[in-house]
Amino acid sequence: MGNTFGKLFTLTTFGESHGAAVGGVIDGMPAGIDIDMDFIQSELNRRRPGQSKLTTSRKEADKVELLSGVFEGKSTGCPIGFIVRNENQHSQDYENLRTLFRPSHADFTYYNKYGVRDHRGGGRSSARITISRVVGGALAKLALRQLGISIQAYTSQVGSITLERDYRQYDLSQTETNAVRCPDAKKAEEMAALIEQVKAEGDTIGGVITCVIKGCPVGLGEPEFDKLHAQLGSAMLGINAVKGFEYGEGFAGVTQRGSEQNDRFTVGHGSPVTTLTNHSGGIQGGISNGQDIYFRVAFKPVATLLRPQDTVDLEGNPTTFTAQGRHDPCVLPRAVPVVEAMAAMVILDNYLCLSAYKN
Amino acid sequence: MGNTFGKLFTLTTFGESHGAAVGGVIDGMPAGIDIDMDFIQSELNRRRPGQSKLTTSRKEADKVELLSGVFEGKSTGCPIGFIVRNENQHSQDYENLRTLFRPSHADFTYYNKYGVRDHRGGGRSSARITISRVVGGALAKLALRQLGISIQAYTSQVGSITLERDYRQYDLSQTETNAVRCPDAKKAEEMAALIEQVKAEGDTIGGVITCVIKGCPVGLGEPEFDKLHAQLGSAMLGINAVKGFEYGEGFAGVTQRGSEQNDRFTVGHGSPVTTLTNHSGGIQGGISNGQDIYFRVAFKPVATLLRPQDTVDLEGNPTTFTAQGRHDPCVLPRAVPVVEAMAAMVILDNYLCLSAYKN
Amino acid sequence: MGNTFGKLFTLTTFGESHGAAVGGVIDGMPAGIDIDMDFIQSELNRRRPGQSKLTTSRKEADKVELLSGVFEGKSTGCPIGFIVRNENQHSQDYENLRTLFRPSHADFTYYNKYGVRDHRGGGRSSARITISRVVGGALAKLALRQLGISIQAYTSQVGSITLERDYRQYDLSQTETNAVRCPDAKKAEEMAALIEQVKAEGDTIGGVITCVIKGCPVGLGEPEFDKLHAQLGSAMLGINAVKGFEYGEGFAGVTQRGSEQNDRFTVGHGSPVTTLTNHSGGIQGGISNGQDIYFRVAFKPVATLLRPQDTVDLEGNPTTFTAQGRHDPCVLPRAVPVVEAMAAMVILDNYLCLSAYKN
Amino acid sequence: MGNTFGKLFTLTTFGESHGAAVGGVIDGMPAGIDIDMDFIQSELNRRRPGQSKLTTSRKEADKVELLSGVFEGKSTGCPIGFIVRNENQHSQDYENLRTLFRPSHADFTYYNKYGVRDHRGGGRSSARITISRVVGGALAKLALRQLGISIQAYTSQVGSITLERDYRQYDLSQTETNAVRCPDAKKAEEMAALIEQVKAEGDTIGGVITCVIKGCPVGLGEPEFDKLHAQLGSAMLGINAVKGFEYGEGFAGVTQRGSEQNDRFTVGHGSPVTTLTNHSGGIQGGISNGQDIYFRVAFKPVATLLRPQDTVDLEGNPTTFTAQGRHDPCVLPRAVPVVEAMAAMVILDNYLCLSAYKN
Repeated sequence: MGNTFGKLFTLTTFGESHGAAVGGVIDGMPAGIDIDMDFIQSELNRRRPGQSKLTTSRKEADKVELLSGVFEGKSTGCPIGFIVRNENQHSQDYENLRTLFRPSHADFTYYNKYGVRDHRGGGRSSARITISRVVGGALAKLALRQLGISIQAYTSQVGSITLERDYRQYDLSQTETNAVRCPDAKKAEEMAALIEQVKAEGDTIGGVITCVIKGCPVGLGEPEFDKLHAQLGSAMLGINAVKGFEYGEGFAGVTQRGSEQNDRFTVGHGSPVTTLTNHSGGIQGGISNGQDIYFRVAFKPVATLLRPQDTVDLEGNPTTFTAQGRHDPCVLPRAVPVVEAMAAMVILDNYLCLSAYKN
Repeated sequence: MGNTFGKLFTLTTFGESHGAAVGGVIDGMPAGIDIDMDFIQSELNRRRPGQSKLTTSRKEADKVELLSGVFEGKSTGCPIGFIVRNENQHSQDYENLRTLFRPSHADFTYYNKYGVRDHRGGGRSSARITISRVVGGALAKLALRQLGISIQAYTSQVGSITLERDYRQYDLSQTETNAVRCPDAKKAEEMAALIEQVKAEGDTIGGVITCVIKGCPVGLGEPEFDKLHAQLGSAMLGINAVKGFEYGEGFAGVTQRGSEQNDRFTVGHGSPVTTLTNHSGGIQGGISNGQDIYFRVAFKPVATLLRPQDTVDLEGNPTTFTAQGRHDPCVLPRAVPVVEAMAAMVILDNYLCLSAYKN
Repeated sequence: MGNTFGKLFTLTTFGESHGAAVGGVIDGMPAGIDIDMDFIQSELNRRRPGQSKLTTSRKEADKVELLSGVFEGKSTGCPIGFIVRNENQHSQDYENLRTLFRPSHADFTYYNKYGVRDHRGGGRSSARITISRVVGGALAKLALRQLGISIQAYTSQVGSITLERDYRQYDLSQTETNAVRCPDAKKAEEMAALIEQVKAEGDTIGGVITCVIKGCPVGLGEPEFDKLHAQLGSAMLGINAVKGFEYGEGFAGVTQRGSEQNDRFTVGHGSPVTTLTNHSGGIQGGISNGQDIYFRVAFKPVATLLRPQDTVDLEGNPTTFTAQGRHDPCVLPRAVPVVEAMAAMVILDNYLCLSAYKN
Repeated sequence: MGNTFGKLFTLTTFGESHGAAVGGVIDGMPAGIDIDMDFIQSELNRRRPGQSKLTTSRKEADKVELLSGVFEGKSTGCPIGFIVRNENQHSQDYENLRTLFRPSHADFTYYNKYGVRDHRGGGRSSARITISRVVGGALAKLALRQLGISIQAYTSQVGSITLERDYRQYDLSQTETNAVRCPDAKKAEEMAALIEQVKAEGDTIGGVITCVIKGCPVGLGEPEFDKLHAQLGSAMLGINAVKGFEYGEGFAGVTQRGSEQNDRFTVGHGSPVTTLTNHSGGIQGGISNGQDIYFRVAFKPVATLLRPQDTVDLEGNPTTFTAQGRHDPCVLPRAVPVVEAMAAMVILDNYLCLSAYKN
């Protein structure tokens, strides 16, 4: 259950890392949008393993096939089914997982919830299933592009190495110029060095991704339970390894006074009402106010270590587990497009909901 | 839209602060539960204004009336409609809001989204609408009580005054002994002093609430989009003034190595599989693992200040706004029961979803 | 569960016939609509008991109170909570039901599903709960009126007395001129006589309501599971005592050839594409085609008889049941506004869904 | 939109008749069910074209591939993605449809709703998309089998040739012994002859399918909007070409008195409470009562005729259309497994919902 996301623009996903394929169904894609297959594939390539020495060395083409809902290059308004075949799986790397629970993985909880478990590569809990989200996000981005809405995420922290400044102080167009996906070249180098060091130790490290959404109209989001930031938070917390979400001033802002944090309204010459500052993060009362929306997402260190760990097997007997295979020492670089994808789907969904009442 | 929360246990709410009443409908309440009206009212009393000098001096009885779904003291499985009449409203205190936008309030976004706006007391965006959530949560707690599941929230930070230690280091039963709802009596005094000082300045202050859920079975939550922490996060971010959510080690954990943060499995003598540590926060792969679930929620300083602020009116002309009426200098003490209420509804909902597949 | 109806325009209901009140929450009402309270009350009056000697003699004012979502006479886009207090209940008339199951009522199924049962007046299964639907429908009609969409239902059959002709052959504006709500005055008299005769015998009788929707744009409804007629069918089948639904030629059309039933396309002078005939009932492929939508709804005879019936009690012992109190010998006259209400909500909901994609 | 069906057991579908594939995602399949691939394929074979001279002569293998959610022969509780590749399509047969609207097809409504239209073979509105429903239904049947619940549909009417008697009077195990899927061999021959005659005339004919569900526990279905028969009705009305639904005595029952139609309760020796008759069709107050559930579904004659019909093109110019290709003269025989599939999904979904509250 719970494999569908969204209200008017929905993504339903399926797939395990070592099954036949991962994929999904996108429902509610507006009709008449040009379906740029190169763009969709390029988004998948940003998420793909083996991009650099910072990520797992698995080689997967991650070629997506759209099976429906597109006719002569345009979306038809009908659901878009898609699959990405699994290839280059080394299922034998995982045979030792059949009878034990990896620490801080989903093995134990799946086993107890379902009684049956595909132990190969984490099964449904593998980061590989984020492929389907990237496809959904790429299609949402194609629709948002026509509306002038853009979404840009970047790695803002790895371990203790942090971008100290505000997103406005960086040239976000530089994000894709390095393997870490950090717009500050110098910090990116430090982060890369840290990731390599951690990898050499058979260990892993966490970090933070910041995301900025520009060009939203006023009115996205609903006042009560479906506040725009609640939807964004839910979307981000649903990504593997995410442990926290904050928007605007977030946790840091709790030490401020209201007089420091309030965003005063103003008007420019001839321009519409706007705010002098944007501590709110572009959302007030759960509804977008036309300013930039920005938020931060915390990722824990990956649970799979290339060093021995104590654990127990299915019968509860103590055992030791050492991961084999190819794993990411740090999930951040490859998670950047996933964060963007989830944000894109939330924004498009809310745009459609807003449009429903505009006639 | 978006005024319904949950899947099998749902709460649908209505109401504005200065309308006739706030209330809602609870659907999916299990049948045969003893409906303890005193408990429900006591939960509302925890949220009620005027409890102490730290909160707004508004006097509201907040008496709830259950209109259906209860027969001879027990829930019937049919929907429970309820209302709380609004009283002691000073709508004239808000007449000056009719034509201007309060900074960092929802006035501007509502006005643009709907074209019509009930300007009195924040209308639908008022914290008063959390009454309905507390009623829903109280009913969920009555059902959870029979399952041995308990939920306890407390104020863990006000401004820069922070409980430094882990929830296990405090006697949470002391939480309700002071007006701040902080289990550390000394820190509570400091927090209270800060709130009074801020109030005297006509200003406001934010903080953090920590929440702990004990007694959950393994298996709550869904693997993909409806991960248990994503649902909890969405629930918390939907509360007024919340800017961030983290569970387990949260944002702090991103600086750790995987080898530090992983929770190793073990077995006691005769006991089932458990973990030596609980950095994960009781959830792995989106599913509860039987350990305590704990999370933190960041609240911004209240936007309503009793001092002048620059803003603009509906036509975009500059003006100055000074709040009148009775307002909270810090939302934390009264938000504690709201956090618990939302958590209770999420847990019960997921318990029912888990039960659906257990036959 | 299952007390919410709709996707973008939703109605959530609560209440039992002998509880404190019936009511509900309407979410997704477009903002800025004039809320004509007289119209809403007049719709309720059409459903109210005691209108004529053909219906139950219960006297209930059925006064509705809107509790939220309306400000200075206009809808605000926020949810509209409402209640209708129960009055003039003769709960003692139902004391004999506490320990037995009335034939063809919901007593047995509720008791087994929930374990607890409000035996008074049918509890949640009472026709009284259709009040909430009529309120929801009245609000939907207010929005549809501005869009030029109208909905008219009428009694087309009582027992074997049938309006033989097509809805186009009647002056539907005459529907409300008689107690049966039949546009053919002569047939209405026959129907009324039959109902009175059946009533005198302590028995009941069924019938058919026909409904016509005019002025819909092309495009309402979704291609796959949410076909417009599937939504209308679900809405009608959810009304108490409904046993069947057909649209267009319905069951009668199955004996025809495709060449007889197909609606050929044509264009008038300067007019858009239309069809020469409308056997399809205004819906093709699940989507409205701009023609009149019409359908028929079958109601069984009311299960409550004023004559003895054999049944069993909670322990399975044989007993005899004779209804006391005031009951309808035929549900049709009072069901006409309920059919319209459900249709209105379906149409408005689909109108909003269509609008979502029109930007 | 609207391509997902169900609440706890859901099917989301995609695909057009001349796209790459049809398929879908099943979410909420209980874990640990043996996935009998032969059974699933045999259900698809019942729906497949080219089974007999009564159906279209198209040859399609309709081989299904399950892509996820199954591990070592058992369901895992994770979503089951599946595809059926489209083959043997003669897209050129449909080139003449690019610029015209076929009478009583979805061409006109899709074109107006979406602006874009896959004209080949009806696109999304093709009966081919019922493949996905049959897969979903086959999986639901595998789960229901373990619960002792069975579902059997059969052709009870073609044109004016009707099975006069009640389903209890036929040996339903004979249904699959003839191409019409009618349990009365003699009537089946008459029906077959009629279908052949109609086919020879280039025309089509409608009919009725009856469906019987045995073995349901008491308690399936919800009291208000989600009455079990409302869900079944919605499911059936969502099948292509369906124009009507009735359960129990249906439309015929409206001429009866309550005293004739009420089902009196009784107990056998040692047996639980049951009813002497089953006019209600196994559902009272929207909830299953443990008796057989039975209903009837009306199918119109197929709109595609192999004879010329007047119509208009996209610009509104009059033209003539004669279908080419291979089409069914009567949809009934192949629709029998689709009716069963939809019923199976509804029953399983409600079984899970009932279980949710049984702990």
